[in-house]
Amino acid sequence: MIRLNCDYLEGCHPAILRKLTETNMEQTVGYGMDPYCDQAAALLRETFACPEAAVHFLVGGTQANTTVIAAALRPYEGVLCAETGHINVHETGAIESSGHKCLALPHKNGKITAEQVAAAVAAQGNDEHIVKPGMVYISLSTELGTLYTLSELQAMYRTCQQLGLYLFIDGARLGYALTAPACDLTPADLAKCCDVFTVGGTKVGALFGEAVIINHPELNRNFRYMIKQRGGMLAKGRLLGIQFAALMEDGLYFTIARKAVEQALRIREALMNKGIPLFIDSPTNQQYPIFTKAQLAVLSQQFDLALWEPVDADRDAMRVCTSWATPDEYVDAFIAAVEGL
Amino acid sequence: MIRLNCDYLEGCHPAILRKLTETNMEQTVGYGMDPYCDQAAALLRETFACPEAAVHFLVGGTQANTTVIAAALRPYEGVLCAETGHINVHETGAIESSGHKCLALPHKNGKITAEQVAAAVAAQGNDEHIVKPGMVYISLSTELGTLYTLSELQAMYRTCQQLGLYLFIDGARLGYALTAPACDLTPADLAKCCDVFTVGGTKVGALFGEAVIINHPELNRNFRYMIKQRGGMLAKGRLLGIQFAALMEDGLYFTIARKAVEQALRIREALMNKGIPLFIDSPTNQQYPIFTKAQLAVLSQQFDLALWEPVDADRDAMRVCTSWATPDEYVDAFIAAVEGL
Amino acid sequence: MIRLNCDYLEGCHPAILRKLTETNMEQTVGYGMDPYCDQAAALLRETFACPEAAVHFLVGGTQANTTVIAAALRPYEGVLCAETGHINVHETGAIESSGHKCLALPHKNGKITAEQVAAAVAAQGNDEHIVKPGMVYISLSTELGTLYTLSELQAMYRTCQQLGLYLFIDGARLGYALTAPACDLTPADLAKCCDVFTVGGTKVGALFGEAVIINHPELNRNFRYMIKQRGGMLAKGRLLGIQFAALMEDGLYFTIARKAVEQALRIREALMNKGIPLFIDSPTNQQYPIFTKAQLAVLSQQFDLALWEPVDADRDAMRVCTSWATPDEYVDAFIAAVEGL
Amino acid sequence: MIRLNCDYLEGCHPAILRKLTETNMEQTVGYGMDPYCDQAAALLRETFACPEAAVHFLVGGTQANTTVIAAALRPYEGVLCAETGHINVHETGAIESSGHKCLALPHKNGKITAEQVAAAVAAQGNDEHIVKPGMVYISLSTELGTLYTLSELQAMYRTCQQLGLYLFIDGARLGYALTAPACDLTPADLAKCCDVFTVGGTKVGALFGEAVIINHPELNRNFRYMIKQRGGMLAKGRLLGIQFAALMEDGLYFTIARKAVEQALRIREALMNKGIPLFIDSPTNQQYPIFTKAQLAVLSQQFDLALWEPVDADRDAMRVCTSWATPDEYVDAFIAAVEGL
Repeated sequence: MIRLNCDYLEGCHPAILRKLTETNMEQTVGYGMDPYCDQAAALLRETFACPEAAVHFLVGGTQANTTVIAAALRPYEGVLCAETGHINVHETGAIESSGHKCLALPHKNGKITAEQVAAAVAAQGNDEHIVKPGMVYISLSTELGTLYTLSELQAMYRTCQQLGLYLFIDGARLGYALTAPACDLTPADLAKCCDVFTVGGTKVGALFGEAVIINHPELNRNFRYMIKQRGGMLAKGRLLGIQFAALMEDGLYFTIARKAVEQALRIREALMNKGIPLFIDSPTNQQYPIFTKAQLAVLSQQFDLALWEPVDADRDAMRVCTSWATPDEYVDAFIAAVEGL
Repeated sequence: MIRLNCDYLEGCHPAILRKLTETNMEQTVGYGMDPYCDQAAALLRETFACPEAAVHFLVGGTQANTTVIAAALRPYEGVLCAETGHINVHETGAIESSGHKCLALPHKNGKITAEQVAAAVAAQGNDEHIVKPGMVYISLSTELGTLYTLSELQAMYRTCQQLGLYLFIDGARLGYALTAPACDLTPADLAKCCDVFTVGGTKVGALFGEAVIINHPELNRNFRYMIKQRGGMLAKGRLLGIQFAALMEDGLYFTIARKAVEQALRIREALMNKGIPLFIDSPTNQQYPIFTKAQLAVLSQQFDLALWEPVDADRDAMRVCTSWATPDEYVDAFIAAVEGL
Repeated sequence: MIRLNCDYLEGCHPAILRKLTETNMEQTVGYGMDPYCDQAAALLRETFACPEAAVHFLVGGTQANTTVIAAALRPYEGVLCAETGHINVHETGAIESSGHKCLALPHKNGKITAEQVAAAVAAQGNDEHIVKPGMVYISLSTELGTLYTLSELQAMYRTCQQLGLYLFIDGARLGYALTAPACDLTPADLAKCCDVFTVGGTKVGALFGEAVIINHPELNRNFRYMIKQRGGMLAKGRLLGIQFAALMEDGLYFTIARKAVEQALRIREALMNKGIPLFIDSPTNQQYPIFTKAQLAVLSQQFDLALWEPVDADRDAMRVCTSWATPDEYVDAFIAAVEGL
Repeated sequence: MIRLNCDYLEGCHPAILRKLTETNMEQTVGYGMDPYCDQAAALLRETFACPEAAVHFLVGGTQANTTVIAAALRPYEGVLCAETGHINVHETGAIESSGHKCLALPHKNGKITAEQVAAAVAAQGNDEHIVKPGMVYISLSTELGTLYTLSELQAMYRTCQQLGLYLFIDGARLGYALTAPACDLTPADLAKCCDVFTVGGTKVGALFGEAVIINHPELNRNFRYMIKQRGGMLAKGRLLGIQFAALMEDGLYFTIARKAVEQALRIREALMNKGIPLFIDSPTNQQYPIFTKAQLAVLSQQFDLALWEPVDADRDAMRVCTSWATPDEYVDAFIAAVEGL
């Protein structure tokens, strides 16, 4: 059985495992104050061309999102996001659990616009009976695999700055976004266009872990207290430092992500050639073909795909993922199966 | 200037003021354990034909809503409500502030259906990554002045019971609902069709205060701790007992509410006679005419109405309210003005 | 039965009731934006000689404390207080419910010192694993009826300012503090020595309500959002404005408080003359005599006192309160009973 | 430089690293639903002789503590603990951040008694103005390295059951407790004497991770929602399953812990032989000698110890830790240094 339903099915890139093994019996201080975290932070600052940014390593995405948002907002503030945003639909109310409302906006292909943000702020009208927007959360790539363009991102950030909102980019799949041929953003562009972003490790080669990169000094004030309180601080923090250092060294993070995107685009091409409709036209590692039940009956003998959303009585939108770990044989086999439908 | 923009512009019904004055220098124990609260609770149980129910008096609607919901839900549970629900839009995120997500559903005239509730529970699918619905919140009358019918309410409660959800009815304007000619619910029906409901004082003759009536014993367990913690417990609790006793004695609550609804329906008739379109067709004390800017320019010289929602460049939906305190002269004057438009 | 166990047993001062009655049918805007709130705020600013301060009216003490503290602190910050502090022991964890730890310090007669605060901050040592002190909470008079002197308060505020802590004075019984002969603080002194304080209405002549007076502009930012979210905002806000205006006019607040303190000090003198030991030597309206069970058996036939704390098998410390509402006859009767023991 | 200041300075036991390496490229479902988690859970149930218990794997101790406590308590309930308890002093208010008060009791050697618990419940007296105790939290070994005896634990659990409190044992250092010669508890005893306990991985051979073992079915209801919401759920959950399976296989967990305790007891003996006083007499892997500054000046040239608490101007209590990773040479060297003082 070949699993293509998810991009975090395997362990980690061998380079990480090697480094973890080599350093295993070293003694280091805990909680992310070790030399490996310093090294990884330096590499991230360099990679994203943000020499002044603060870099923190958290154990996972839920903690990263909750911690960043809780650090940014006052109790009466909420976070604007797409109704499809991960924080709005797939974190069991973790944001609300920290006291803040997700202010969900209608999405288009998983994206929201600067105009929507401005309209939402205007509609709130500084009325103290209504939750005040304090931050905008977007994902790159989005939960639907789509991308913001540079000009969209610049417009969003300009709007946020004008309106006094923080802009937060959830980069759980950042590697698969920045390496997509359709992406016109460089790492440096990204860092310049937001107050805080994450660089996802879990889905792009690490065992676990998210780097949080903060450009806005006020947001960084006492941020480590927030990490500790919200459960995001790892006792053996170096494990995160080692992993991100390995990923950032010589651009490994992007190399492995680019490969996965290429595989996904090969799949996309095969789907289109076969006339399989796409639920969403995604330029990244997640593809959303619409298959008939009959087609799925065939495919599911060999492949594990994720049900994304039923389309009608006879058809389902599925999610097909590649990742840093996907062997070319899996992709070849899936393409062959699609061609044979 | 005649204010018809709101139903809590004045103090309280003279019968309440009289009773407060008469009892002013009596010494009673605090926090709602006094004889007046006991008396008011007994009258409420009798009025709503729920002899086993627990009755609590809270200082206001936000506390009542927050306390009931926080008492009902586990941390990972949310409350289903209309997207227009008061808790979702006009309490500055008080529900989220207590850790719970408002699971907003599309509304029709401010109402949601049992089918929507069942579909929402099915969609969540007991997936631990998604907030679990634990309660349904509806308002009677709704934020748009509309009513649930007995059969709608029965269907909703049946669905809730089948799905293990609490049903909570926010009765901030309960008097104006139950006395509307279009309402086919008796007070006893209401109490039989939910786990908990409030009887609003603030908008129906009291200075302030909401009675919370709990039918479900589990929900009532240690409820007074919740009231105290969430700030809903009044030190001089008797003030609430005295007010609700006065309102419930000889049906005063319904007498004054019925009068206000009659006034509102006279206004409604005048609007319809004049051909003024209604934004929502409300059978209760809140009316939502759509006026042109020109009409508003005339009316606003004499009347203070509430802007509900802009309709188009030239027209606004307004809210016109009557209340227990509205003099007939105000209604006559407004009708005359409408006729003269 | 004469109740001397509590200082909020009755309704309100007749002047308030009169004013409520006179204004009852006036129409005003809600939520504290009415002319009566403006008038009361102006009178408070004048009384406390703080022309720049922001004044808000909240429905009760729990809301006032929770709202002020939640507005002041970041999520990882806590509030230093005496272990006897109201917020630490008698609000059902309302502060913790809003996410903040009460950092309780050992008290002496209900008081804490600037030295203790400085030591607590030093002990925390800006270690991100430990809750960071962000505010100091003291009560005036304290929960044990005692007073801070001007120099103690100045030292506390100086320390707070040096350490970047807000200083919050809970004035639930402020009237009884400032009018005590032993008090060397003027209202103006008080306002100058803290960032925020409350002026308690509930215990000093009002039906309910606390004024929150904020000197520190940053703490006041968007404070009304906080009030609304935490349930402290009264729909018919003018009820609070009317009450505080009545209390502040011509110094009524202080006149009635002074009378109560004089009564309490007469009781104190009688107790001392009789050789009854005092659990705490309180200069304000709360007295804490230690009676034997035999003495209590006699007194309890005529008087309702509050058990404060058992002292040993044979003796209990009791609380005896006077208030703005206590008739001289009650005091005379109690003194006679003490003399007759 | 030899570090003996902490028991989580290294990576993980080689057996774990080996297993992680072997399984690295396997594809498994996420979030702890994989076969390795099943296997580890089965081994834990067997090891602790609790075949009916639920077993969950969380990423770290803060999440484990916060999740268990938030799952157990109603909003108005607090958790009784020693004032030295980890949750009370070293988690940046994570418990309060979830809305619950730590009800700290005076400790003796880091321990609290059943009598203290009973007295605290009696003192609360079911008064709704006071936080209600809902759970007891103890640590084994404690934060001071000490142990509860079987009879102490039985008495505590009996008291908890009588009073309707959950008993939670934080086993961050459980291995070092259960393998101490002074410990009269078996793993089965432990599991029988509480409602929920954790088996710490981070400090006993794992890279990270805590197993939460729940005996009380009600506490387990929807627990996975709680884990997800609070950030304790690992996407690649198998990493935890693999680690705990490796640790539990053939008793590795206890073998490595026993070795560390033996090392610590050798150090203890050397300290006592040398006449170095002990701040706490600990029978486990943490030792607390009191050294003079002069002695520390010597030792610190070669060893990194942790300052526990200054004792007086000339002396400091230090913490010396061994762990599963401590080489005998380090212990020998430290003993030699102590003997040479």
